[in-house]
Amino acid sequence: MAHRFDPNFTDHVIDSMGPKTPPRLRQLMAGLIRHVHDFARENELTIDEWMAGVQLMNWAGQMSDHKRNEGQLVCDVIGLESLVDEITFTLADEAKDAPTATAILGPFFRPDTPYRKNGDDIVLNKPGDGEMSFMHGRVTNFSTQMPLAGTTVEVWQASTNGLYEQQDSEQTEFNLRGKFQTDQDGAYSFYCLRPTPYPVPDDGPAGKILQLMDRHPFRPAHIHILVTNEGYRPLTTQIFDRRDKYLENDSVFAVKDSLIVDFVERQGDERAGLELRYDIKLVEI
Amino acid sequence: MAHRFDPNFTDHVIDSMGPKTPPRLRQLMAGLIRHVHDFARENELTIDEWMAGVQLMNWAGQMSDHKRNEGQLVCDVIGLESLVDEITFTLADEAKDAPTATAILGPFFRPDTPYRKNGDDIVLNKPGDGEMSFMHGRVTNFSTQMPLAGTTVEVWQASTNGLYEQQDSEQTEFNLRGKFQTDQDGAYSFYCLRPTPYPVPDDGPAGKILQLMDRHPFRPAHIHILVTNEGYRPLTTQIFDRRDKYLENDSVFAVKDSLIVDFVERQGDERAGLELRYDIKLVEI
Repeated sequence: MAHRFDPNFTDHVIDSMGPKTPPRLRQLMAGLIRHVHDFARENELTIDEWMAGVQLMNWAGQMSDHKRNEGQLVCDVIGLESLVDEITFTLADEAKDAPTATAILGPFFRPDTPYRKNGDDIVLNKPGDGEMSFMHGRVTNFSTQMPLAGTTVEVWQASTNGLYEQQDSEQTEFNLRGKFQTDQDGAYSFYCLRPTPYPVPDDGPAGKILQLMDRHPFRPAHIHILVTNEGYRPLTTQIFDRRDKYLENDSVFAVKDSLIVDFVERQGDERAGLELRYDIKLVEI
Repeated sequence: MAHRFDPNFTDHVIDSMGPKTPPRLRQLMAGLIRHVHDFARENELTIDEWMAGVQLMNWAGQMSDHKRNEGQLVCDVIGLESLVDEITFTLADEAKDAPTATAILGPFFRPDTPYRKNGDDIVLNKPGDGEMSFMHGRVTNFSTQMPLAGTTVEVWQASTNGLYEQQDSEQTEFNLRGKFQTDQDGAYSFYCLRPTPYPVPDDGPAGKILQLMDRHPFRPAHIHILVTNEGYRPLTTQIFDRRDKYLENDSVFAVKDSLIVDFVERQGDERAGLELRYDIKLVEI
């Protein structure tokens, strides 16, 4: 693109990389530097605007800890995590090994979530307005269709107040989270809440960006799922409730048609009035 | 650019901005989102690569405090601060009001630097290998060429060990920094060190990026100058010592030809064997 600034500056910065730079890193840094410089020139970025961006970036890091990843959330609200997920899924799909659509991990995943038993309840603190649901399904090998025993199905969801347990001192630790191991039939099951929409945290830079862009912070009702088994490609996804009004304008752009599910009425179970069956196929590495 | 990913995704994210978004912010966010998404698609960014970037961004914020701005330093090593400075200077030059070339503020500026008297010494802790210099000059009005009394000339420099005082517990607070006010002739003067090259801090993400790019962290020898007077455009600049071997490959890309100066021998002053005269012109707002 034509501009009236030093035409050699960007190449000079890129060419300063030394011979020991790994090839992939060289490619990524060159692309990043070129896009960042083009962005600054095309918009004639001022010092104050650039510094506002730096402060926002520093603020994101300062808000982040083992329970919160604000840098990730900033990426999420500009669609970057969902785009990287789409790229990953597209490449897997071209390789014909993507039986289940994927979605972003999101910033509320906790790697230290405990295992529970199939049929257990992840609702440790039942909110008055919560609708109990029984969620169950089978994990199979995509190619052979055989059940995959010993698969870990990890789920997490926010409570009806819009908060995940690590955001809410009123919730017991690991409320609405659990890891389940499939049985010999590849089956998993647990009780959870019908998910409800909630806003992403808006007390940090991601919230500030949303506010400046005159956007709402809401995510449509969803349950996060991470499925892992040794020798199989891990699956990170989210399932969205079809009745949700935010399906069309998710604040982090994660909804795909194939991830929308229907909760149905459940008969004869005093613990839950709703049910969701969700089967999962994994691909061998 | 043609690609095989959802062709509507980026427009969808940009179009999610609401009607109350300020026009300049809408322009900047649209440009940023488009460049970030193009970067991700062109390079088929993986989840691990993206997450490495997020962690680097969070790390920068976590290292930043009132004495250190690591987010700024990360921008500096990819040339962004110097580019924004060039854009600012080019626009001012087109308006015919930029008599002195500018340079970046850098991350070691301290707004709470104390005033000293003309002729004072900013070298509170003299290093054994330091060369004392007398720096002086006059500040005038660019248009009228009249002296500008009461102008604040603020300077800061690293010691010969490569560290600014806030990075070095061995240095007295505000060592090698000072604010000076010009007298009725517009004159300022002080004793300082002949500057020496030093590496930018490489214990954080900026250093990690430099290391990955196989680049050295050195900046050529320089003195930072910030000149302010009510009613005049503030001037941020750096002056570089012509003898320095890093003039051609400054790790933050701040050198301009017009900012290179010559220290000369000084006779008959037992306090300093070198001298630098540096005059400054300010433009009315």
